[in-house]
Amino acid sequence: MIRLDASDAGFDRAFADLVNARREADADVARDVATIIASVRDQGDAALAAFTSKFDRHELDQSGWRIEKSDLVAALGGLSDELRGALTLARDRIRAYHEKQRPADSDAIDDAGVRLGARWRGVDAAGMYVPGGRAAYPSSVLMNAVPAKVAGVERLVMVTPTPDGKVNALVLAAAELAGVDEVWRIGGAQAIAALAFGTDRIAPVDMICGPGNAWVAEAKRQLYGVVGIDMVAGPSEIVVVADGANDPAWIAADLLSQSEHDPTSQSILLTSDAGFADAVTAEVDAQIGTLATRDVARAAWDANGAIIVVPTLEEAMPLVNRLAPEHLELAVADPEPLFDLVRHAGSVFLGRNTPEAVGDYVAGPNHVLPTGRRARFASGLSVLDFMKRTSFLSLSDEGLAAIGPAAVALADAEGLPAHARSVAMRLSTQSGSQS
Amino acid sequence: MIRLDASDAGFDRAFADLVNARREADADVARDVATIIASVRDQGDAALAAFTSKFDRHELDQSGWRIEKSDLVAALGGLSDELRGALTLARDRIRAYHEKQRPADSDAIDDAGVRLGARWRGVDAAGMYVPGGRAAYPSSVLMNAVPAKVAGVERLVMVTPTPDGKVNALVLAAAELAGVDEVWRIGGAQAIAALAFGTDRIAPVDMICGPGNAWVAEAKRQLYGVVGIDMVAGPSEIVVVADGANDPAWIAADLLSQSEHDPTSQSILLTSDAGFADAVTAEVDAQIGTLATRDVARAAWDANGAIIVVPTLEEAMPLVNRLAPEHLELAVADPEPLFDLVRHAGSVFLGRNTPEAVGDYVAGPNHVLPTGRRARFASGLSVLDFMKRTSFLSLSDEGLAAIGPAAVALADAEGLPAHARSVAMRLSTQSGSQS
Repeated sequence: MIRLDASDAGFDRAFADLVNARREADADVARDVATIIASVRDQGDAALAAFTSKFDRHELDQSGWRIEKSDLVAALGGLSDELRGALTLARDRIRAYHEKQRPADSDAIDDAGVRLGARWRGVDAAGMYVPGGRAAYPSSVLMNAVPAKVAGVERLVMVTPTPDGKVNALVLAAAELAGVDEVWRIGGAQAIAALAFGTDRIAPVDMICGPGNAWVAEAKRQLYGVVGIDMVAGPSEIVVVADGANDPAWIAADLLSQSEHDPTSQSILLTSDAGFADAVTAEVDAQIGTLATRDVARAAWDANGAIIVVPTLEEAMPLVNRLAPEHLELAVADPEPLFDLVRHAGSVFLGRNTPEAVGDYVAGPNHVLPTGRRARFASGLSVLDFMKRTSFLSLSDEGLAAIGPAAVALADAEGLPAHARSVAMRLSTQSGSQS
Repeated sequence: MIRLDASDAGFDRAFADLVNARREADADVARDVATIIASVRDQGDAALAAFTSKFDRHELDQSGWRIEKSDLVAALGGLSDELRGALTLARDRIRAYHEKQRPADSDAIDDAGVRLGARWRGVDAAGMYVPGGRAAYPSSVLMNAVPAKVAGVERLVMVTPTPDGKVNALVLAAAELAGVDEVWRIGGAQAIAALAFGTDRIAPVDMICGPGNAWVAEAKRQLYGVVGIDMVAGPSEIVVVADGANDPAWIAADLLSQSEHDPTSQSILLTSDAGFADAVTAEVDAQIGTLATRDVARAAWDANGAIIVVPTLEEAMPLVNRLAPEHLELAVADPEPLFDLVRHAGSVFLGRNTPEAVGDYVAGPNHVLPTGRRARFASGLSVLDFMKRTSFLSLSDEGLAAIGPAAVALADAEGLPAHARSVAMRLSTQSGSQS
């Protein structure tokens, strides 16, 4: 953890280092991923079996390539009533929020007599990556699958590694609740390549969503364009803006709720109260040892934690915008004036009573959010990511007469005579029929 | 040009080859681009000056790095009244269409007492690539710049190569009409890298749009994630679905209006009338020699043109969806039944009277559209590409009590105790204050 004071000499330099610190994939990962992608493209299922044997330590021909619908149903049935209820509440609230994102089609005739419109359609097939191991979260299954189904995706294909052949019952239960159509026991960059190109067993998809490690993220980046992808995702991060009237224990827990995700996660507190900064530091140290996730949380907090003391919270907001954080808590009594100063953030949690973790699970907005300063240009996952828009137009004789001559003039000016001719021929026939 | 008949043996194989034919960048381009990007990242303006000297044959320190506002104003003033009028009509119609794309913010309290919403904001700064040479189109300046300005982008930066130091007055006039804020005389992959990373002279941007050659497209693909990009764009393409009642000369002109863009452009006719296919073939051959663009059009038509005879036009539509074309004309008297069968297309032109070229210039919808089968998952350029959405939420005591326990249960199940604690602490204080 580093502590900075905005009034210190050298602050600008230290803050710029914090903003620009890279916690993402390096060139070695890119090379490895390119090799894996080429293998799957060229050798298909044989490459999948070999990589799965190597990385996940089981043989697909023995353990089975797919997880069947009956296994999903059994996993959901095996949950405690409390957990099934919590997952169902989460699913229903996520669905309700995302249903409002469904875009409207348009179709209208304008003043010039030109009919213009747009039709939205879901992609035919979407792939969803679900990590194995530490980051196997049923909440992420819901956050990715529910928007796909709201978008109208007919074939939603889940891929997930099953290390040593072991499946994760919680993840399977969430897949059943969310309406996943196919599940394959493959992971890593090889699973992303299989979804993008297809293999003999696995039909290709049109877009791929879902979180993953650096290899998965790099595979999505390299295959962007062959398929659509949700986003390039990096380590998770939170920025908390808090005054001294907060309970330091609450704020410490909020910071640790990011740090416990992964050693590369980042938690940053911005406060106007140096004494509160001391109290939160002490609380983090006190709480961290009690967590079952203490090793990860300690590594992340030590390496990537930061506490920054600012003269006023208003003056914190330009720093927040430079960080463009994935998650932003505004833990003050009246957050609205600060919120109005936010230009870049994935999701904002308003007031002392709104811990970021409720957004991870049950609030309704998506928890798949832009990381690594990408909130400058990117948004959280939405129904729109699983849809595409087809524009259309139709010209009446009147519409062609109104706008056709300008098209001919511009095509001539651009040196594109066939463009001009395709319009001019129709215009001349029209004037002929009027004579 | 190849001619296929859907009733021939071997059609499926031949059509699959057509769908999968690659007309895009190869590994050599990717390597060259990676080298250029690294140079600009490490050496900034010095690399820009060196690449410009090498590829564009002028010295930026002598010719000037920027094109000034006064030059844009002069270029616009120097156009003929007809051309300025045509560009202005196009600008106004594009703006009117795109203003309807501006998304609405949301902010509401749901039944559980949870306040949920989303705010849309334009990116701070956008970069726009404008090619030099053959593909320097003022219409593309309008199609990229107008949506950015409608989105509220405050700093719109145009980069364009000026080979041998020569500027393109039409492009500068369009930039002035569209409200471009800065223009730099740089091009190629080096210009994309400069926009993404920034240099001493050029401040970085948040997203990059605009068409370019294979090097520019590959640079955008490699830098996706560092900045936002509009899309990965490949060669342009058109599919025309036409019955035998069309004028073959019109349809030939429509096919040639794609072929004349670039030797890699693709034009495909699907018709149910073999005699009409013969007539269009003859018309293409008759018209092509009369075009000033004949060399390009001939090369593209010979290499990538196709005419496919199908039993009925309804049976053409599954083939259209496999091609997922950038542009689709439905040249029949009643296009609606066919249009209802379209699943994947960038833009659709309905009826005999609607040549694709009107959409390139003045209709209003964007002419920047997904190519290379990407209409399966991608949409044309829109105002949304220049904006991002920040979701937000706020919990009342009632809201926390309603959904907090489910969040605690899910966090525990996922093995994330700090997540659970950050919610549970607030829940326990709440029940304390109620006792």
